[in-house]
Amino acid sequence: MATSGGGGAALCGALLDYKTEKFALTRNRRMGLLYRLLQLAVLGYVLGWVFVVRRGYQDTDAAPHVSVVTKLKGVSVSRAEDARRRLWDAADFSRPPQVGEAGFEPVSQRRSGSPSVLDGICVEDVDCPMGNPVVHGNGIKTGKCVMFNSTHSTCEIFGWCPVENDTLPRKPLLAEAENFTLFIKNTVNFTKFNFSKGNTLQTNDPTYFKTCMYDPFFSPSCPVFRIRDMVEAAGETFGALALLGGSISVRIEWDCDLDQPAAHCQPRYSFILLDRRYNFRTASYYWDSQQQHYRSLLKLYGIRFDISVHGQAGKFGIIPAAVSFGTGIAFLGTATMICDLVLLYLDAKADFYWKEKFEEVRMGCGTTWES
Amino acid sequence: MATSGGGGAALCGALLDYKTEKFALTRNRRMGLLYRLLQLAVLGYVLGWVFVVRRGYQDTDAAPHVSVVTKLKGVSVSRAEDARRRLWDAADFSRPPQVGEAGFEPVSQRRSGSPSVLDGICVEDVDCPMGNPVVHGNGIKTGKCVMFNSTHSTCEIFGWCPVENDTLPRKPLLAEAENFTLFIKNTVNFTKFNFSKGNTLQTNDPTYFKTCMYDPFFSPSCPVFRIRDMVEAAGETFGALALLGGSISVRIEWDCDLDQPAAHCQPRYSFILLDRRYNFRTASYYWDSQQQHYRSLLKLYGIRFDISVHGQAGKFGIIPAAVSFGTGIAFLGTATMICDLVLLYLDAKADFYWKEKFEEVRMGCGTTWES
Amino acid sequence: MATSGGGGAALCGALLDYKTEKFALTRNRRMGLLYRLLQLAVLGYVLGWVFVVRRGYQDTDAAPHVSVVTKLKGVSVSRAEDARRRLWDAADFSRPPQVGEAGFEPVSQRRSGSPSVLDGICVEDVDCPMGNPVVHGNGIKTGKCVMFNSTHSTCEIFGWCPVENDTLPRKPLLAEAENFTLFIKNTVNFTKFNFSKGNTLQTNDPTYFKTCMYDPFFSPSCPVFRIRDMVEAAGETFGALALLGGSISVRIEWDCDLDQPAAHCQPRYSFILLDRRYNFRTASYYWDSQQQHYRSLLKLYGIRFDISVHGQAGKFGIIPAAVSFGTGIAFLGTATMICDLVLLYLDAKADFYWKEKFEEVRMGCGTTWES
Repeated sequence: MATSGGGGAALCGALLDYKTEKFALTRNRRMGLLYRLLQLAVLGYVLGWVFVVRRGYQDTDAAPHVSVVTKLKGVSVSRAEDARRRLWDAADFSRPPQVGEAGFEPVSQRRSGSPSVLDGICVEDVDCPMGNPVVHGNGIKTGKCVMFNSTHSTCEIFGWCPVENDTLPRKPLLAEAENFTLFIKNTVNFTKFNFSKGNTLQTNDPTYFKTCMYDPFFSPSCPVFRIRDMVEAAGETFGALALLGGSISVRIEWDCDLDQPAAHCQPRYSFILLDRRYNFRTASYYWDSQQQHYRSLLKLYGIRFDISVHGQAGKFGIIPAAVSFGTGIAFLGTATMICDLVLLYLDAKADFYWKEKFEEVRMGCGTTWES
Repeated sequence: MATSGGGGAALCGALLDYKTEKFALTRNRRMGLLYRLLQLAVLGYVLGWVFVVRRGYQDTDAAPHVSVVTKLKGVSVSRAEDARRRLWDAADFSRPPQVGEAGFEPVSQRRSGSPSVLDGICVEDVDCPMGNPVVHGNGIKTGKCVMFNSTHSTCEIFGWCPVENDTLPRKPLLAEAENFTLFIKNTVNFTKFNFSKGNTLQTNDPTYFKTCMYDPFFSPSCPVFRIRDMVEAAGETFGALALLGGSISVRIEWDCDLDQPAAHCQPRYSFILLDRRYNFRTASYYWDSQQQHYRSLLKLYGIRFDISVHGQAGKFGIIPAAVSFGTGIAFLGTATMICDLVLLYLDAKADFYWKEKFEEVRMGCGTTWES
Repeated sequence: MATSGGGGAALCGALLDYKTEKFALTRNRRMGLLYRLLQLAVLGYVLGWVFVVRRGYQDTDAAPHVSVVTKLKGVSVSRAEDARRRLWDAADFSRPPQVGEAGFEPVSQRRSGSPSVLDGICVEDVDCPMGNPVVHGNGIKTGKCVMFNSTHSTCEIFGWCPVENDTLPRKPLLAEAENFTLFIKNTVNFTKFNFSKGNTLQTNDPTYFKTCMYDPFFSPSCPVFRIRDMVEAAGETFGALALLGGSISVRIEWDCDLDQPAAHCQPRYSFILLDRRYNFRTASYYWDSQQQHYRSLLKLYGIRFDISVHGQAGKFGIIPAAVSFGTGIAFLGTATMICDLVLLYLDAKADFYWKEKFEEVRMGCGTTWES
């Protein structure tokens, strides 16, 4: 370069030279059309997708601080096989929120020896090695072989007795549970933007949450959900799910555009059926008047609600805007490169364009091949 | 291309031809200045943001295996309305870690019939259809209309009785809870780099964790947090939060540069107030000497701590370094494209530059328009 | 541009002009080689990494709805110091799934006054200010100084008494726990693709899950894991971990290519040892026949399993495919830019190339410097 060897002023001048790529202009309609179409596609992607749908000009915070509190409300009387009445209300159900239904009356058990139900058919005591745990069983063999019924003898086990009798329930026992309500209080805090919002309506009416019921169209800001509505939103009927239990995922999604007023930032709820069977065991312990340790074992068939919160907030930021803009421009450049590949390798007059596009550089004395 | 039809050696030679774009050099100071400024901005972004702040040359693992164990320590005597003394210590509080405060003495309830408090004003028995659950209520109507007080009659409900009397607490009952401590033991394991670290100081002094207290400046590696300190770091006073409860998010953030010594990889804690009200009910069950089933129902106003861990570790990797470098170079190219747009569409001498930049390619016989 | 001032047809024609960059072709073998190598590296990265490994042509859903249900099975008799036998089965262990081992017999405590073990050595009553909580202790000072043993006096505290005697266990008490099994039922639902899958084999054989045992090679689709196998997969022996407890992270990873048959979408399990110490306290409450409130306090040393699920599914999408393709092309462009930098600043004949590459544009009347 002529001026590069000069003084400071010349160097400074050279620094401010602007170099722009030279283009060969061809009047090739097909190529022009292809080029313009590619440009349009890129523009559509960048403007429509990156800027409008994904809001690429925004700084985002996708990891909010989240708090979820749930309260299950409702009461039901289970009519068990032996017609004894038992009553369940919300404090009887545990976390995660689940509507439990006792398949059977709780089994009152105490630690003692009893014949094994599952396995361990034996003839005499030596068939039952003492201390051996019963695989998948409920106790440890005591070393004795005892009569199970008139035809079989089984190993005696030391465990919580009598042993649980594991059969499937024939009908759902807590039909009223479909009208139970689940109150979901959810707060998100986007630290980066110092913005906090809850899913409950800001209201001064203390009875609002006691009377409202969530509906996607008529009361989307009421955080009280009826069990039956949630099961139906997940595409199942309550009756079908109530027999053997199930698991439903409740997702709360926040997609907040903080360049808009805060009132536009509202959660969306979605309900997905994850599993058609769910049960769990729970036990409570007590001592009776003779100071014997009992436990009351329940096998509950229930509907479990797994609540997850996903949040994202965006606000205009100069760096993400510049980067998205630059990426869009860089993508426009690829349109040229794709057209070049077509022009040089697929076009009928490729040879002609090849010569025009690539201008051979020759060293002064004609030696074009260097080592 | 002349040599493309030749033999293998010629093709090989052609493959090793190097084609470099031809540029038109203009001595336009304004354009040059714009160009250099854009280049500087891109360089600043790439070097400053992508390489230094985001460490774009590193391979990252953003999904560590995480373990959190919490232990609440402290003891307090609640002085309830009727002056009976009750004592709470850490094993009495449940998970997630929360400092519960009984708004009232536990209500001792048993399953029986009692007048409804909430609704169901009635005149005679037919106003109370049997088996109907009380909406948002605590029982199922028995079908009887009983006297509630001297002026009203309400439907009798079968439920846990006596019915809970739901009023707000007037003063926090466990004032000493501000000095309770929460021990948070957190371990992260970045499988990709086989790197594991905990938030507790590696010390041989067994009494260290019994005497230290977290302070962001003086003892940042002590994992024992005082409740009051956490509430204050979240921007609230303990007294204000203790009355109606609240929910505080504790976030532990790990941002580990594994190209540095492992000792530099330390967690940062942040505390955010998520909610100003929090209460929950819990019940424990027992049989009395007459074999009646009782439960002891507590409504606790408490402060709940939701602990979440976010982690990211990075280590130099050749692929991410090359990709970040390539992206930076590609971004530099956009500077040229932006300047071109200005030069060709906005500059006073745009026509002149247009002609210089685009060299028309003419087919041999002058037919510039193809079909 | 000559035609730009014309009518509508001419403008339309100009719009369809195709401009292709002019290149200067040099027969510089070293540069050519460098250029082709860079092109190959970029192609390898784009095809091998972006398209094959990362499946960049796919639309992805990385936030599935997830449900995890665990059931611990097994039974064990703890032989505590005083040889009293206690039996533990799965319903006795709590969530998260953990194999607990009582370091000691449960301490039966009731609220009363007792001498403090930890601190508070005193001579007379004034050394024990009433109502002062014992730091890290278990009660509140009653204001009395009582004899602790023959040599010391300590402050009396009001708390759960007798005070827990905190020493380390000398041998694991539940050796049989290594044969306990953990059943992990996991379902993922990718809402975007309406695709749902579980980790349990779809089988009609009801006894399959009662008899199978997970093995990475022979039965990878059996969701029943033996405790010992999991501990060993995490690189530890059961015996070493059983004494003081520990914490193991179980991660289930789904990486589903939905362009393949659904049967190929299988979870991978990984087990990582996170911590070598883990214990927790739990208490159960009861009233004795004299209506005194007791609690039974247990300090359990156990192995805790933290289960986390990570999922990602991908399916061919036209937008992500086009974007990945465009990004690859843009990266190819950087090869030219890197070679240019070498050619213009490092090559021996840089001056020559500089002149060829940059063609000076001169204004008609020779004024190359504008203001």
